[in-house]
Amino acid sequence: MSMAVKDLVNVNLGDRSYAIKIGKGVLSHIAETVKSVSADARCVIVTDTNVNVAHGDSLRGILDEQQIQHFTIEVESGEKSKSWSVFQLVVDDILATKLERNDLVIAFGGGVVGDLAGFAASVVRRGMRFIQIPTSLLAQVDSSVGGKTGINSSHGKNLVGAFYQPAEVLIDLDVLKTLSPREFRAGYAEVAKYGLIKYPDFFSWLEQNYGDVFSHGGALATAIRTSCEAKAEIVAADETEAGQRALLNLGHTFGHALEGYTAYDGTRLVHGEGVAIGMVLAHRFSNRLNHCSMDDVSRVEAHLKAVGLPTNISDIPGEQPGVETLMSFIAQDKKVKRGALTFILTKGIGKSYIADDIPPSEVSGFLTEQMTK
Amino acid sequence: MSMAVKDLVNVNLGDRSYAIKIGKGVLSHIAETVKSVSADARCVIVTDTNVNVAHGDSLRGILDEQQIQHFTIEVESGEKSKSWSVFQLVVDDILATKLERNDLVIAFGGGVVGDLAGFAASVVRRGMRFIQIPTSLLAQVDSSVGGKTGINSSHGKNLVGAFYQPAEVLIDLDVLKTLSPREFRAGYAEVAKYGLIKYPDFFSWLEQNYGDVFSHGGALATAIRTSCEAKAEIVAADETEAGQRALLNLGHTFGHALEGYTAYDGTRLVHGEGVAIGMVLAHRFSNRLNHCSMDDVSRVEAHLKAVGLPTNISDIPGEQPGVETLMSFIAQDKKVKRGALTFILTKGIGKSYIADDIPPSEVSGFLTEQMTK
Repeated sequence: MSMAVKDLVNVNLGDRSYAIKIGKGVLSHIAETVKSVSADARCVIVTDTNVNVAHGDSLRGILDEQQIQHFTIEVESGEKSKSWSVFQLVVDDILATKLERNDLVIAFGGGVVGDLAGFAASVVRRGMRFIQIPTSLLAQVDSSVGGKTGINSSHGKNLVGAFYQPAEVLIDLDVLKTLSPREFRAGYAEVAKYGLIKYPDFFSWLEQNYGDVFSHGGALATAIRTSCEAKAEIVAADETEAGQRALLNLGHTFGHALEGYTAYDGTRLVHGEGVAIGMVLAHRFSNRLNHCSMDDVSRVEAHLKAVGLPTNISDIPGEQPGVETLMSFIAQDKKVKRGALTFILTKGIGKSYIADDIPPSEVSGFLTEQMTK
Repeated sequence: MSMAVKDLVNVNLGDRSYAIKIGKGVLSHIAETVKSVSADARCVIVTDTNVNVAHGDSLRGILDEQQIQHFTIEVESGEKSKSWSVFQLVVDDILATKLERNDLVIAFGGGVVGDLAGFAASVVRRGMRFIQIPTSLLAQVDSSVGGKTGINSSHGKNLVGAFYQPAEVLIDLDVLKTLSPREFRAGYAEVAKYGLIKYPDFFSWLEQNYGDVFSHGGALATAIRTSCEAKAEIVAADETEAGQRALLNLGHTFGHALEGYTAYDGTRLVHGEGVAIGMVLAHRFSNRLNHCSMDDVSRVEAHLKAVGLPTNISDIPGEQPGVETLMSFIAQDKKVKRGALTFILTKGIGKSYIADDIPPSEVSGFLTEQMTK
């Protein structure tokens, strides 16, 4: 029996528009979603080991009940699956099922699975339809919405991929219960990010209500819906990141560099943690450039600390990175233009902006200071 | 000194529209094309060994003269470069140049290079701009126009790729002079195809003027421009092959199966030759189904034979394929829907149509007949 969809967010992208359905038990809507794409659509579920163990049978059970033919492709959990070799494997495995262009790929997992499966769907037969069923908080509020898909290259993170929109996103709050506290916290960093980018009232609300969010109370659905609305609004205005969409990278240039230096070793640093540290650094850096008050820097730091997120480079276990190492990762980030660096800076909470003229020397000077913290 | 552009064909695709410039010496326009994309754009030339030897220095010379920074990535000539491993290599090599999203990829070669480089451009940083400079007749009249890019999988030809439009196409008639007669003929099969699809007057004109086309007379430019106009019209009406674009596959389902069975061994069969045989088969098959007169079948066969193209499966050197082998390649072609096969059939010259309900048994019966020819 399917439960009612509690919340619905539309991503308005012309003929590539789609709905995000949010609610407890919303997974059960998968059958009608599949059938709405094509009456006799078959599907291939791309998932990872952890999610398959926790939720794979329940998804397949729903499909079986509705006589929808399905295949499952399982990849290892973790960022390392966003590689050339796993990508080729997934694409070839989808082709091996002989699914056709009107069939469906279901990305069933966290950000890694969504990015990998979405990119695979975009290239199989030059584009199959796909549905995102994000199972981590991070994927639900960020990576499953907006159509960025891709894999990592030895040259850097997410450097190979496609802008490719899903046919629908199903966000089931129930699946979040199996997340580890650390994964949940990491996803929360992206929730807080929306407040910091341009919704100061949402950030204040989070400061008041984060307890209820973390205990899976009613505030959780509100936090997720508000995050999806914020992302949908920004993406609809700028699908391919020609301008304002770059605001979503707040904290990400520093964050990606930190992930790069840990070689995407999730035992040391996961993406959301990198973003948390990166957001604090972006505020501190903005303060150093006299754009953001110290009060706002402290508020950001205090809130992220309160939920248990790391806020300093030194919070990362193991050997600390050198400034030169971080600078080389920053230089190869996608956000570079003619040698000057593009950073998302801020004039205070909810007042972020794009600065595309930051001299590398300013950044390395700032990082040198931070290293001694 | 740059020569005037003789012909200009526009591909109308909204914000993805672009121009095809056709003429002798049009290669010299590359510098202004690069600069029109971005004032200080750099570029990476993706080419193959043969084209690089014949024309690489002249292209680089033009870029040098205009102080445009460039890199060259050379792949081996031939269909085997449309592979996963070469694709990954090209993408990683483009990333290694540290080119940015406003820089350019130049696909400089035949259909293989265009498909490979275009697909690579589509995924590097989720999409770099790219220019097609097709150097074979086949690429000039077909593969460089319309945005289909991709590579082959072990499951079949062109099963992995993207719809990705170039920023411009430069068609230089001079570069065709270095083509072997066999390559030129193979490209001519696609020229004749446009007449057979829906331009019967063009086919009649080709029957009269093919001698001048083959001796690089004035008819060559007309044949190329007319082909590009035909393709542009069809693509503009149906970019992602939801409908009429499929007409361009006339002869291709049989042709791809023949290429598959020769394992893309260009010494036995190149793409255009497969299409020539495939087009004759499509007409014969249509005749068998009582849709096309024997007179029209004979005209098609006679014209393709006159220019020296193969028209029978038995014209392929080496061991002949079994019907079952061909049927398995046909079944894995992209043109399959729920078990029934989609074929481009014809009611006569210039009267092709899409038939999506062909029972496999009809096809295998027909092929069994053909094998004894």
